[in-house]
Amino acid sequence: MASYLITGCSRGLGLELATQLASSPAVNTVFATARKESPGLKELIQKSNGRVVLVQLEATSQDSIKQAVTSVEKALGGKGLDVLINNAGIMDYTPGGPSSLSGEDMNSVLTTNVTAVHLVISAFLPLLEKGNLKKIVNITSTLGSIAMAEGFLQSPSVAYKVSKAALNMLTVQYAFQLGKQGFTVFCISPGWLKTELGGVDYADLEVGVGATAVLEKVLGAKKEDNGTFMNIKVKGWDNTGTANQYDGVNPPW
Amino acid sequence: MASYLITGCSRGLGLELATQLASSPAVNTVFATARKESPGLKELIQKSNGRVVLVQLEATSQDSIKQAVTSVEKALGGKGLDVLINNAGIMDYTPGGPSSLSGEDMNSVLTTNVTAVHLVISAFLPLLEKGNLKKIVNITSTLGSIAMAEGFLQSPSVAYKVSKAALNMLTVQYAFQLGKQGFTVFCISPGWLKTELGGVDYADLEVGVGATAVLEKVLGAKKEDNGTFMNIKVKGWDNTGTANQYDGVNPPW
Repeated sequence: MASYLITGCSRGLGLELATQLASSPAVNTVFATARKESPGLKELIQKSNGRVVLVQLEATSQDSIKQAVTSVEKALGGKGLDVLINNAGIMDYTPGGPSSLSGEDMNSVLTTNVTAVHLVISAFLPLLEKGNLKKIVNITSTLGSIAMAEGFLQSPSVAYKVSKAALNMLTVQYAFQLGKQGFTVFCISPGWLKTELGGVDYADLEVGVGATAVLEKVLGAKKEDNGTFMNIKVKGWDNTGTANQYDGVNPPW
Repeated sequence: MASYLITGCSRGLGLELATQLASSPAVNTVFATARKESPGLKELIQKSNGRVVLVQLEATSQDSIKQAVTSVEKALGGKGLDVLINNAGIMDYTPGGPSSLSGEDMNSVLTTNVTAVHLVISAFLPLLEKGNLKKIVNITSTLGSIAMAEGFLQSPSVAYKVSKAALNMLTVQYAFQLGKQGFTVFCISPGWLKTELGGVDYADLEVGVGATAVLEKVLGAKKEDNGTFMNIKVKGWDNTGTANQYDGVNPPW
């Protein structure tokens, strides 16, 4: 019976990951973080018989992170946290290309998608060290693959791409630091999902399909996956021959 | 006769690049930016017969960048700027690994090494578009290669590594945007240099050797080098078999 903490659960992929994990017999508690409890998250919590627990968290605030750690520690009652999924993130809309991106947008995307993830990992590390599974999962994107950049030129999110490349390096740095302690730290691209962030009209996959595929990888991850960049595997999408191919093969950096 | 603008010229690699370019017959003017004129830069400017021009610049300030553009535009008298070398950067010292890095250090390194470079490129773009050479060079590092990360575990600069991976993606994004207009945008690792940033005692190369090797690549860069990640080539260091190999071969992302 494992405990999970997922950031960014008010909607989209985070809410769906929490929903699917809450119905898994292998899961004890899902700590679902959100800046504010959304209607969808409220409903999930009410139906969950105590398995989904709201944790108020503004991940760019160190005070808020500290309070979240205290409340999770209390709820765990001496036990460790098994799995951390850093899902919260933001995306810029920069159709004019890099030269049209404001410094404020660049900094704000880097702060949320990189620095906040770093702060959450380091703050929850003592609880994760006491956990049995010792998995840290960072939700990244193939948009953050520098080698694949040409295939994603149509995606108008320059700061997001830059931030995900940075997050990938951060993931690898943590993997090297924590691998010796038995941790499995990796990043995974959840596919282009029909969410508010991904865009409901044009995206490839229903959010439930993406979440299921992510959890397959998370549950199956072994120590040899430490420090890797994973791609989901989805039947029917594993041989498209385009950048949006969900074949389960680790993308290049 | 070309014009260059180099950021971060108060010392180290920037000062050396400015010095070497100032003595090249192919170079007309070197705009050397610094937050404050250092003794070394002052001496170079005095000896340069007007070929090296001080540009006061704090690259994290948009007001300062705007003023710098105005003064360079005036000095160019209607001509364009040929080459921009983004050299300014900072490095963190995080021997305790990622979990010991403060959020402030992460944000400050990202702001200086990524966002400031972005702001400088976008602000000088109109002048670069009027230039003949249309080269934008970002000084990165093999420490920013995610694929090579294991070889650099001993380098205690987590935020720097993360920022250089981000800078590499930014470079590629600009390369795709500007390549159609005839630009050559690339990033280059200058080697581990005996500077204040690199460490005088342990680094591999004298700063002059690194600067010469960088300028060889900058001068030789052609349109097909747009969007690449270059490594310098230094005789005697091109077959070390370690991560610190200066063989002129583009590193993996």
